[in-house]
Amino acid sequence: MSADLEFYFDFSSPYAYFASTRIDQMAARYGRRVHWSPVLMAALFKVTGSVPLPSVPVKGAYILFDLERTARHHGIAYRKPANFPILSLAAARAMLWIDAVQGNARAAQFAKDCLRAYFAEGIDITDDNELLRLAEGLDVDPAALLVGIKSPEAKEMFQRASNAALEKGVFGSPFVLVDGEPFWGFDHFDQLEACLAGQSQR
Amino acid sequence: MSADLEFYFDFSSPYAYFASTRIDQMAARYGRRVHWSPVLMAALFKVTGSVPLPSVPVKGAYILFDLERTARHHGIAYRKPANFPILSLAAARAMLWIDAVQGNARAAQFAKDCLRAYFAEGIDITDDNELLRLAEGLDVDPAALLVGIKSPEAKEMFQRASNAALEKGVFGSPFVLVDGEPFWGFDHFDQLEACLAGQSQR
Repeated sequence: MSADLEFYFDFSSPYAYFASTRIDQMAARYGRRVHWSPVLMAALFKVTGSVPLPSVPVKGAYILFDLERTARHHGIAYRKPANFPILSLAAARAMLWIDAVQGNARAAQFAKDCLRAYFAEGIDITDDNELLRLAEGLDVDPAALLVGIKSPEAKEMFQRASNAALEKGVFGSPFVLVDGEPFWGFDHFDQLEACLAGQSQR
Repeated sequence: MSADLEFYFDFSSPYAYFASTRIDQMAARYGRRVHWSPVLMAALFKVTGSVPLPSVPVKGAYILFDLERTARHHGIAYRKPANFPILSLAAARAMLWIDAVQGNARAAQFAKDCLRAYFAEGIDITDDNELLRLAEGLDVDPAALLVGIKSPEAKEMFQRASNAALEKGVFGSPFVLVDGEPFWGFDHFDQLEACLAGQSQR
């Protein structure tokens, strides 16, 4: 089996949510698996000098409209969260703790559940209680997770993960690396699929 | 026949070049025509606080790579111009002069020829002589055009066109309005086509 695809995403990124509903299935069609890594756009944006899209004049309003349209176009449930955007530190730390304790597949499922909860079900994932509830559904011990989220180790894991992503040239969300080749944005998933199809024919 | 699609583009925008090879044919498939309008990204970027992509750290290098990949993916001839990006004032003024004298269809053909010359054939479209040569191939009198480009009227026409675009919420290139609905970017042409297909069934 080929190397895993690397999927980088911010829990506050709606286009990452859209991507999260597709990436595993797409990879599986070509015999590939996916390694999920949370990033913090606020940290990435320092490198590129970018600002959160919703805060940009004119473009911000377009993006909010485009999110509704893109969700409809792909048949993805989506409802703009009341608190958007958020600083998604707690969700990212929780995910990395689950990754360390139960592996990346379980962590990825947690991430997918969080993204759907936030972007389709009106659930506030900056609330620790909501994170614990979501984790509990995956057979993760909530008491241990709560300790984990608050631990210096979780903060350090996330710092390390962020730096590793930056070093690989990740500058946005969602971002996919296929054997080192970068794909930025949900709207590049057609080219991502073409790449996977081409490689599976080699 | 329905209202024309409005196609906004900067002569210095490679994704607009890609879009220019598709937009007329796509519109025609749904019984629509396209009105072409040049804009200056430098002016639009003042509104959104954006900077030219190639100058952004990390992201700039990705974009240059993505341009090659996107051209290959869609089978479009592309060669990164030696002088990129450019301030495309002369080409835009020439196009608007042709539009005023010979109509938008001729002006659109001039724009397509300029974009292909610049982005596929290594021709410097900041050079007036190249613009005149391209116009001559379309039966435009080069001597009159040269006077036209330099005229205060051409400058004013472009200023007016830019302001009109800004007022309609155009903030990037390429940008398409379909009966007022905005589509930003060549990578949104699948959603643009879905919109046209949906409207043609009404």
